[in-house]
Amino acid sequence: MITRMSHLFVRTLRDDPADAEVPSHRWLVRAGYIRRVAPGIYSWLPLGLRVLHNVERIVREEMDAIGAQEVHFPALLPREPYEATNRWTEYGPNVFRLKDRKGADMLLGPTHEEMFTLMVKDLYSSYKDLPLSLYQIQTKYRDEARPRAGILRGREFVMKDSYSFDIDDAGLEVSYQLHRRAYIRIFERLGLEYVIVKADAGAMGGSASEEFLAVAENGEDTFVRSPGGYAANVEAVTVPAPEPLPVGGAPAAHVEDTPDSPTIETLVALINDRFPRDDRPWTAADTLKNVVFVLRHPDGRREPLAIGLPGDREVDVKRLESAVSPAEVEPFTDADFQANPGLVKGYIGPAALGTTSASGVRYLCDPRVVAGTRWVTGANEPGRHVLDLVCGRDFDPDGVIDVAEVREGDPAPDGSGPLTLARGIEMGHIFQLGRKYADALGLQVLDQSGRLVTVTMGSYGVGVSRAVAAVAESTADEKGLAWPRELAPFDLTVLATGKDPAVFEAAEKLATELDEAGLSVLLDDRKASPGVKFTDAELLGMPTTVVVGRGLADGVVEVRDRRSGLSENVPVADALARLIATVRG
Amino acid sequence: MITRMSHLFVRTLRDDPADAEVPSHRWLVRAGYIRRVAPGIYSWLPLGLRVLHNVERIVREEMDAIGAQEVHFPALLPREPYEATNRWTEYGPNVFRLKDRKGADMLLGPTHEEMFTLMVKDLYSSYKDLPLSLYQIQTKYRDEARPRAGILRGREFVMKDSYSFDIDDAGLEVSYQLHRRAYIRIFERLGLEYVIVKADAGAMGGSASEEFLAVAENGEDTFVRSPGGYAANVEAVTVPAPEPLPVGGAPAAHVEDTPDSPTIETLVALINDRFPRDDRPWTAADTLKNVVFVLRHPDGRREPLAIGLPGDREVDVKRLESAVSPAEVEPFTDADFQANPGLVKGYIGPAALGTTSASGVRYLCDPRVVAGTRWVTGANEPGRHVLDLVCGRDFDPDGVIDVAEVREGDPAPDGSGPLTLARGIEMGHIFQLGRKYADALGLQVLDQSGRLVTVTMGSYGVGVSRAVAAVAESTADEKGLAWPRELAPFDLTVLATGKDPAVFEAAEKLATELDEAGLSVLLDDRKASPGVKFTDAELLGMPTTVVVGRGLADGVVEVRDRRSGLSENVPVADALARLIATVRG
Repeated sequence: MITRMSHLFVRTLRDDPADAEVPSHRWLVRAGYIRRVAPGIYSWLPLGLRVLHNVERIVREEMDAIGAQEVHFPALLPREPYEATNRWTEYGPNVFRLKDRKGADMLLGPTHEEMFTLMVKDLYSSYKDLPLSLYQIQTKYRDEARPRAGILRGREFVMKDSYSFDIDDAGLEVSYQLHRRAYIRIFERLGLEYVIVKADAGAMGGSASEEFLAVAENGEDTFVRSPGGYAANVEAVTVPAPEPLPVGGAPAAHVEDTPDSPTIETLVALINDRFPRDDRPWTAADTLKNVVFVLRHPDGRREPLAIGLPGDREVDVKRLESAVSPAEVEPFTDADFQANPGLVKGYIGPAALGTTSASGVRYLCDPRVVAGTRWVTGANEPGRHVLDLVCGRDFDPDGVIDVAEVREGDPAPDGSGPLTLARGIEMGHIFQLGRKYADALGLQVLDQSGRLVTVTMGSYGVGVSRAVAAVAESTADEKGLAWPRELAPFDLTVLATGKDPAVFEAAEKLATELDEAGLSVLLDDRKASPGVKFTDAELLGMPTTVVVGRGLADGVVEVRDRRSGLSENVPVADALARLIATVRG
Repeated sequence: MITRMSHLFVRTLRDDPADAEVPSHRWLVRAGYIRRVAPGIYSWLPLGLRVLHNVERIVREEMDAIGAQEVHFPALLPREPYEATNRWTEYGPNVFRLKDRKGADMLLGPTHEEMFTLMVKDLYSSYKDLPLSLYQIQTKYRDEARPRAGILRGREFVMKDSYSFDIDDAGLEVSYQLHRRAYIRIFERLGLEYVIVKADAGAMGGSASEEFLAVAENGEDTFVRSPGGYAANVEAVTVPAPEPLPVGGAPAAHVEDTPDSPTIETLVALINDRFPRDDRPWTAADTLKNVVFVLRHPDGRREPLAIGLPGDREVDVKRLESAVSPAEVEPFTDADFQANPGLVKGYIGPAALGTTSASGVRYLCDPRVVAGTRWVTGANEPGRHVLDLVCGRDFDPDGVIDVAEVREGDPAPDGSGPLTLARGIEMGHIFQLGRKYADALGLQVLDQSGRLVTVTMGSYGVGVSRAVAAVAESTADEKGLAWPRELAPFDLTVLATGKDPAVFEAAEKLATELDEAGLSVLLDDRKASPGVKFTDAELLGMPTTVVVGRGLADGVVEVRDRRSGLSENVPVADALARLIATVRG
């Protein structure tokens, strides 16, 4: 069935929507693929829905190909299973919660580990039933604090989530690798430039975990790569701790006046002036900066937290959020300073910190702050700092926290060379969950010797609606969308120009033949100027446009390729065969 | 790809689930098609999901065939559009409500009239854009007071809803008839025995409205039919009011002692004994029964309501609920009697009723209670009734309410003969909504003369997940499910019996050939007894089972038809062609 522009439910916009933050959002709205209903909540118009269904088809085919079986869970879920795993609490405000008419607590599922675990527990009981992989393509909910970028980060979104069930770790590794390979095929077919990076398992628990990131300037995720092949989400980068140094030998710590040096920069200038080193000038890396935050725990409790790190680094808040999850990070306010009078703003030093100190504020340090390192740091008095303060001699942090910013040129943790940074969009995530959920919910099966053993699980996600935006983001140009063939709503646009009825008849005939050959055709049959039609064809972004116009008198039609911009005149008699060959590739 | 029973995620149950109220629920659970997660909330296992997808495919094909275009709206919706049409309030406790992290009111959409209206308003502005039909296949939510019967009446369910937009009533009629014909094709393809009945438009507003009911003993809906072709949902039946009679001529009303006659039956016996009529005996139809209820309005207000109707009829609570919607019906409690001391329980009469009476209780009467009719009714004193009370002379109801039970043999309102009653499951509903939503939300377009006119709408729904249950309900037998070909999860079960490896190899070979021919095959390759395999094949309900077993030595396989139970031996050499012909029908 040919789809006609005169009939298609679409309206293209010449101007960018006011709230569009990123190109994919701008173009998807302008081309009439999606519309916003509420913050982070979108409707799909016919063109957008066709792309979404294409992504679903690709994902379904690749999941079926590895023997995963499709099921479907509700989005509206009872509280109890999430209570059993403590996620009812841990999700905090990120989950939509509601009560039904009888007052029962329910949630809109952000992810379904609990439900899958219980389902397998209900049906299966023997090692003979395993391995098993189940998946669903389903609408999920997350009450994002900052929904943004259209469907890139929505509050209602479509995901494929799958779960593997194995009797032992070796089985889990096989299931994990099967999923990994399926994901590679999915992202190849989506036409995305992607990287596979080590990931932080975050709120999901578990151990081995990798992310598939679409490389994108506007991506929310930062990742690092080394020449030797290391690749990780920045949250997952671990800074190798240096060997501890002997704590003796250094001069005793001494407090000095450091007037007018409220910043690390002014402090370094002052100590180079007043207390110069013999070997080299002081640098920011010699100072120990102590930054305070408040953690809000899922149970609502607020806990101050001090973080010590070399003064040439900032705390990376996303790395911090990841490290302390499910607690949330809040600023340490003036009110918090008033409540903790031992902490002198701008001059906080280790002496005032630690669970055994007078303040009782927990104090965690960067991995670089090992025993024997010497620091210039706050003396807990306005206008004064302490020098030659030695870790392990003069102070002992409560622990290590690896949340300093990762910088271009930092060494890769595996020694594979200096890191480069880039940004990406998280498109897929594969986890070796292990036994966390099976333990919490009692998923055990009988093994070959008749003993009950706990099943080990993997959890695997693909952002299906997000993929639509990510592909738009990576392929759109200054004229609009430019879909890869597997995702395009239609294989071709057939476009008639001018007013000659013979042209419209020829376009109609060609469109019909293409349709009968099994291609999907969008026929622009509108009574509109060629300029409007060309502009819309480029904005809507079908891979190929056939222009039936003036050339018809000479027996040719024009075939335009959306991505290269190249066009070619093709004899009418050859057009059908050529177009079929082009589309089928 | 062949699906193997040894691998399929399914577990069949030999016993009925404890909560199964109807056959479809029992069989869908026992055959491993669905599982309950919470009241009215179900998960789909692989077999069930395949049937659901088949229903979706049929619905999608038939909607596309009438030129309707598929879109997709969110399930999580903002309050404002529903506020504009007053449905935020009218839905009362039937809608799931929640607040997001910023405190904004949201709901889980039970139906999407508002969203479609706003979307068309956003995109379209001219009569040239119309007619337009849009649809979605989407998960919907309704916080049912009494979720029951598995997926027949769930709280999370899949619906196809569509909406037509026309410039005038004639256009709406065309769109309505297009949908009506598409629905007929859908229900034919689903293999359902169905009736099309006049419907009450209920909470949706609007005028012309029909329901498609699957005929089913366990259906929640009652419908009526007449020999002359009248068909209506019992809520939509209208009782023709008799012509008014002259009010003069009857004796004056007189109050009489009627001791020991608390019921209509004892009352009729007593008055036949003490106050016999000349012409015929008194019957229950001569008494006027006054029944009191409380309406709970959407704003929470409780209003007593008295209903007068002939004593041989009961109030049909479903008809009443439909008539007073969006108000809900509650019992009139002892506390309510205490609050209304003018109402004497068991002896309520018209004198104590009406908005202008001392009680102020609104009093509505059955259409049969017309001016000039004479009644025996309560005298508002314990143990006393009033006789010869004439409507229009001695009392005037506040209005008419048509909520008495409809009985087998009642005359059809259009004079087409006596009604018969049957039960059904509401599968589809088509409405001529008119301009209610377009008015409330300002959906106007320019007509040919450049004037703004309000668009007129139709609203059309099919219960997609409910269809799975309805078809199961109508086709299951004492052995289990028995799917029609278009809905079956697989075209065929291939079943190997015995232990002979040659049998398993032949089954595998046949399954492979069938799969390569494009049929979907479930191969029972389990190491299980033939009895278990046969029982499961019948329980799971594929239309055709091929048994490869002992007959193989004689060169035959057995082909069994699930619905007829007939079986036939077919030479192995012919089996492939025969089975393809059977499936392709």
